Amino acid sequence: MEKRNIVIIGGVAAGMKAACRLRRLDAQANITVIDRTKDISYGACPLPYYIEGLYDDLNEVRKTPAGVVRDEGFFSKVKGFNTLTRCEATAIDRQQRTLTIRNLDSCEEQTIPYDCLVMATGNTPILPPISGIDLKGVLPLKTMDHAAQIDSLAQTAKNAVIVGGGLIGLEVAEALTHRGINVTLLEMKDQVMATALDFSSAALVHRELRNKGVNLRLAEPLQRIEGNGSVERVVTDQGSYDADLVLMAIGVRPVVDLARDAGIELGTTGAIAVNDQMQTSDPAIYAIGDCVESTDIISGKKVYIPLGSTANKHGRIAANNICGQIEHFPGILGSLAVKVFDLNVARTGLSAEDAQLHGYDSISHTSSSPDKTHLYPGCQSIVIKLVADRKSRKLLGAQVVGTGVVDKRIDIMVTALSLGATVDQLAQFDLCYAPPFAGAMDAILQAANALRNKMDGMADSMSACEAYQRIQQGEDILLLDVRSPAEYDEIRIPGATLLPLGALRTRLDEIPKDRVVVPFCKVSLRGFEAQLILQQAGFTNIRYMEGGVLSWPYEYEQ
Amino acid sequence: MEKRNIVIIGGVAAGMKAACRLRRLDAQANITVIDRTKDISYGACPLPYYIEGLYDDLNEVRKTPAGVVRDEGFFSKVKGFNTLTRCEATAIDRQQRTLTIRNLDSCEEQTIPYDCLVMATGNTPILPPISGIDLKGVLPLKTMDHAAQIDSLAQTAKNAVIVGGGLIGLEVAEALTHRGINVTLLEMKDQVMATALDFSSAALVHRELRNKGVNLRLAEPLQRIEGNGSVERVVTDQGSYDADLVLMAIGVRPVVDLARDAGIELGTTGAIAVNDQMQTSDPAIYAIGDCVESTDIISGKKVYIPLGSTANKHGRIAANNICGQIEHFPGILGSLAVKVFDLNVARTGLSAEDAQLHGYDSISHTSSSPDKTHLYPGCQSIVIKLVADRKSRKLLGAQVVGTGVVDKRIDIMVTALSLGATVDQLAQFDLCYAPPFAGAMDAILQAANALRNKMDGMADSMSACEAYQRIQQGEDILLLDVRSPAEYDEIRIPGATLLPLGALRTRLDEIPKDRVVVPFCKVSLRGFEAQLILQQAGFTNIRYMEGGVLSWPYEYEQ
Repeated sequence: MEKRNIVIIGGVAAGMKAACRLRRLDAQANITVIDRTKDISYGACPLPYYIEGLYDDLNEVRKTPAGVVRDEGFFSKVKGFNTLTRCEATAIDRQQRTLTIRNLDSCEEQTIPYDCLVMATGNTPILPPISGIDLKGVLPLKTMDHAAQIDSLAQTAKNAVIVGGGLIGLEVAEALTHRGINVTLLEMKDQVMATALDFSSAALVHRELRNKGVNLRLAEPLQRIEGNGSVERVVTDQGSYDADLVLMAIGVRPVVDLARDAGIELGTTGAIAVNDQMQTSDPAIYAIGDCVESTDIISGKKVYIPLGSTANKHGRIAANNICGQIEHFPGILGSLAVKVFDLNVARTGLSAEDAQLHGYDSISHTSSSPDKTHLYPGCQSIVIKLVADRKSRKLLGAQVVGTGVVDKRIDIMVTALSLGATVDQLAQFDLCYAPPFAGAMDAILQAANALRNKMDGMADSMSACEAYQRIQQGEDILLLDVRSPAEYDEIRIPGATLLPLGALRTRLDEIPKDRVVVPFCKVSLRGFEAQLILQQAGFTNIRYMEGGVLSWPYEYEQ
Repeated sequence: MEKRNIVIIGGVAAGMKAACRLRRLDAQANITVIDRTKDISYGACPLPYYIEGLYDDLNEVRKTPAGVVRDEGFFSKVKGFNTLTRCEATAIDRQQRTLTIRNLDSCEEQTIPYDCLVMATGNTPILPPISGIDLKGVLPLKTMDHAAQIDSLAQTAKNAVIVGGGLIGLEVAEALTHRGINVTLLEMKDQVMATALDFSSAALVHRELRNKGVNLRLAEPLQRIEGNGSVERVVTDQGSYDADLVLMAIGVRPVVDLARDAGIELGTTGAIAVNDQMQTSDPAIYAIGDCVESTDIISGKKVYIPLGSTANKHGRIAANNICGQIEHFPGILGSLAVKVFDLNVARTGLSAEDAQLHGYDSISHTSSSPDKTHLYPGCQSIVIKLVADRKSRKLLGAQVVGTGVVDKRIDIMVTALSLGATVDQLAQFDLCYAPPFAGAMDAILQAANALRNKMDGMADSMSACEAYQRIQQGEDILLLDVRSPAEYDEIRIPGATLLPLGALRTRLDEIPKDRVVVPFCKVSLRGFEAQLILQQAGFTNIRYMEGGVLSWPYEYEQ
């Protein structure tokens, strides 16, 4: 039997994962990876931390944990397959099963045969066709070369403008701020991470950015970039911002030209359409990683959310299927995590806004908790927002934001969502407990129980954002702080009235009957109890503030 | 309608949780909690950290996160129910539905009626009837008073002996070592945490204890304690150990006398038997917390594993059921976490040894991984052991040990086990990824894929312990280190031969055909690849070492 020819276009995450797995499964096949660049098999996600200065050698992003650079020689000697760098795929002949490739240095072209083709062509940053986009000092962050350029510009830059409040924009905002550069972050939507977080979660990120000195400009689209050869300033409809460096981070799009030209089907998102075995409309051609679209596990809809975590899974699955080990990719949950200065942010599944858009009869609740036993050193707080379907009581999604451990709680939720758990099941999980790691009732269990109380009609509540906005709009709402005087003295929500919970039962006459009353405490367990006490005493119109002082995303009085 | 009388015996975790929830659900009921001590509603788990000196005020363990001491006044004013402290329940009259209680100060007795009784009588430390057990300086750690005594003894103690290598023994060993005391830890089994961990995981804890200066004595049962009024030494069959302080931490047993005397059914474990609504054999009597037995979710067997996390859930569930909100407790997984010096240890579900005992056709695999992206500052390694059922491919349990983040991975496994996930499902979970939190393929996904390779017959491996023991028994095994010379120079497994993976394909003639060859690397991905290369080259008897250098629990050469 002849050896199969397997050709992989793209040698970063998905492509290299596929190639390595293929070699393990098939010792005989001719496996060839081609890539336009020399910088193969690099991790893009650690690049912002290079700019921040957390490691010195940019080549670290291409090294194995054991410290070996993953270059052509590594893949040849250690992994056992061939890599052609500085080599571009220009055309696919699907009838003949051949690929035309061009060497970008010699410009020589050749046609190579394939039995199986794997497209891992990745994504490319979106650069809007505005005036000044080509100025020196205006660039995206996708490659090692971009990182090197930004690092170099940052050595002398005084002012930087970051366009786009997504993951890369946030990470680089932090990195450049740590380097002493004045950072303006422009976001055209009214919140950062608009496709990932509800406004209520994003608002906590906004405060953190502002507290750390970032000039955050929301709902302010970029108009043009000005300069003379090099960038000098960025102009919006609201102002002009000096800039020695502009990071364009408004998003990426899949690289699909080669696929489209070959007549391979694209999906509704514009990315390559694949079945759950990572096969394109041509059964001899697979596509993986950032060039393909995914199925959202919860909604069943097609989405384009390119992430390294997904790319690595794709690589393994495609290789398995190519070798006859049939494996299905279940889809994604849009899980992600990001550190923004001292705040950790993570999310999975549907946001409350997503759930409404998708027509769910959904319900959400926000809780605040310590991330471990409160007296253990280093304990920090986290704010958890859970979203569930009212009828089935199934979980739909979660967002966790705080200075404490958020990724653990989101990964619990990822697992629960992947397996279709209800909020009632979540509340009973036998999560591990010890003071250095969690409270006796972990924060996520408390969040689940608080949501159950609300679903069961026992708790009546509103979010901090809702309370704030209704007061801003002139509604006569009493914010009732039921904490202790000592807590109140330390930090408080502007305009709130103090009435400690322990005194509430004896001072009911001080509570107005004709106003909406919103009791709250530090986390709002006492806020909830105040709601029950007041309702049991005959008050109507009582709704506690979810998450209490810790989830309030606006300014405090101190 | 008359107000119900609900009486709760025991005012620590489960009892107080039940009382608080009952009050929220039923504003009218007469709710009374009785407790033998004044120290109600305290957290026992943080007590070792008081001894270590991580916080100064012992009363912290009775405070809310907002800093309020949870005393009788707090429960009366804030939570709205009555607590009788220094009060003992002496008899239950189930016909009359009355409880006899005695005030421990005045010795007055009274009989109080109940409509519903909740037993939360807790556990008591096991003190074996050996000579010297009553000496001054010999005590368990269960109450705040014990913690205060140990703290006081530790101020002058030079030598301490801890009897029992369970959670409390390990935590106090660390606490006393940090205070400069010489600690001997006696364990009658050949490993610590014998009911929780496989030997291979415990062996990593053994090395950590020894490296941190603990005199760990395994398989060495206590014989007697000697002293003159106060303890002076502890004697075993192998030696005598000076001691100014002896912590008895061999386990606890449920407090069931009152229940047994009243004819309430006990379970096979000796703890009170309850149904999944926390009801005893008398439908008017509930039992919760450390006095009841649980069902193991995986095996379906009854177990006695008293933990604060379970107690809190019990309290809420009993209260719900008492108030007609029917809720079922699914059981437990024996999840736990513990910090032992710089090592984090957590586990859930069945160990490999448990799985064999319960008759599963089980398979396990041990993997080592960085806990986050390897170049991110603070990255540490973890060793993950997964256990699964061969036929159904369902996960059965997990153990994670390392200096990195272990609790996140175990809580993912808790969620997966609770919902009956297979190892194939686990491998596809869309866990969140960013360099500060995880690798692109999280450690637990890598562990799942490694186990799948083994289940599918592609990987042939043995654990580090198996390799070590077989060599110790004289078997002619070649430990083949396929790392780089630089890695080998830094640290190595004694007796291993170096042959870097990149050179393996060209140096096959150096590999003996007549010996068992055990290739390994730092984590054993390269070890696995070496196995494949050698097998593809016609070698038989190749089994890579699971988890590589990082999971080797014995001494290294440096």
